[in-house]
Amino acid sequence: MDVAALNALPFEDFVNILGNVVEKCPLITAAIWSERPFVNFTALETAISDFIDALPESGKEGILRCHPDLAGRDLQSGTLTRESREEQAGAGMSALSSAEASRMSRLNEEYKQRFGFPFVICARMTDKANILRQLSERCLNERATERARGIEEVKKICSLRLRALVLPDAPNKL
Amino acid sequence: MDVAALNALPFEDFVNILGNVVEKCPLITAAIWSERPFVNFTALETAISDFIDALPESGKEGILRCHPDLAGRDLQSGTLTRESREEQAGAGMSALSSAEASRMSRLNEEYKQRFGFPFVICARMTDKANILRQLSERCLNERATERARGIEEVKKICSLRLRALVLPDAPNKL
Repeated sequence: MDVAALNALPFEDFVNILGNVVEKCPLITAAIWSERPFVNFTALETAISDFIDALPESGKEGILRCHPDLAGRDLQSGTLTRESREEQAGAGMSALSSAEASRMSRLNEEYKQRFGFPFVICARMTDKANILRQLSERCLNERATERARGIEEVKKICSLRLRALVLPDAPNKL
Repeated sequence: MDVAALNALPFEDFVNILGNVVEKCPLITAAIWSERPFVNFTALETAISDFIDALPESGKEGILRCHPDLAGRDLQSGTLTRESREEQAGAGMSALSSAEASRMSRLNEEYKQRFGFPFVICARMTDKANILRQLSERCLNERATERARGIEEVKKICSLRLRALVLPDAPNKL
């Protein structure tokens, strides 16, 4: 589906198709429908990014809190969104050794305890070893730094999900 | 569950329990977790209301666009959220005559065509006859008036959903 076709969609279809480009935040997709027509893919991506940037800090934290843990409860219980499941599986999160799984779980808890939102990383652009390293390093950051860093990752995830829907021949790494 | 118990919840549980007080917008619940502890029910309700008011107009329209039509496609196909299904059934939306159903469908389309968001009304606080009358009258308003009016209705729906979760002995009408 190209951008011209997206521009022509009624809001219900636009939200049905693009509603999860930011995990569990269809509000954002539904909001930027107001700004169509988008001249190209970049304009669409920029509208989402600008909407996120204009939210108060609590709203940015709200977006992060709509994300599941990596290799967490939702992966175990099969309640991840389709997009998250594929992304986490691609980064090896569904095939951790038991030692890796308990390390991941301990670090996820430590991160959430410290920051009040979950560790978010664009799984498609990394791998298991790097995820564990980053999770462990990022636990040491300041809250404001991590909030901004998490939102950067949300935008990378969003960009790849958008590409898969709007530019299906594009590679699935940025 | 009282407000003190809510204040003590980690964000995952807070969002699991209250995530749909604004239809399909867990971002809002997740955002206001940053502002806990809430001194009482009113403070919780006010935090949600203030968050919505601080959104840009496109964000308010985004919230409206996350709402299903009354007696629409989602009701027919069984894909309403539990909260919406109960609210619509209570207002008689699942038992329309075929003439009423086609009038409702025509007016919903006219409304969406005119405003670019769906007609939202707090179904628990009204009935079938009033819904049809209001839908028909509100089609004549200006877009900005209807956006503000829709958001007022969102807040009434939110208030009743919150009461049912946090003050379960409260009446289910405002």
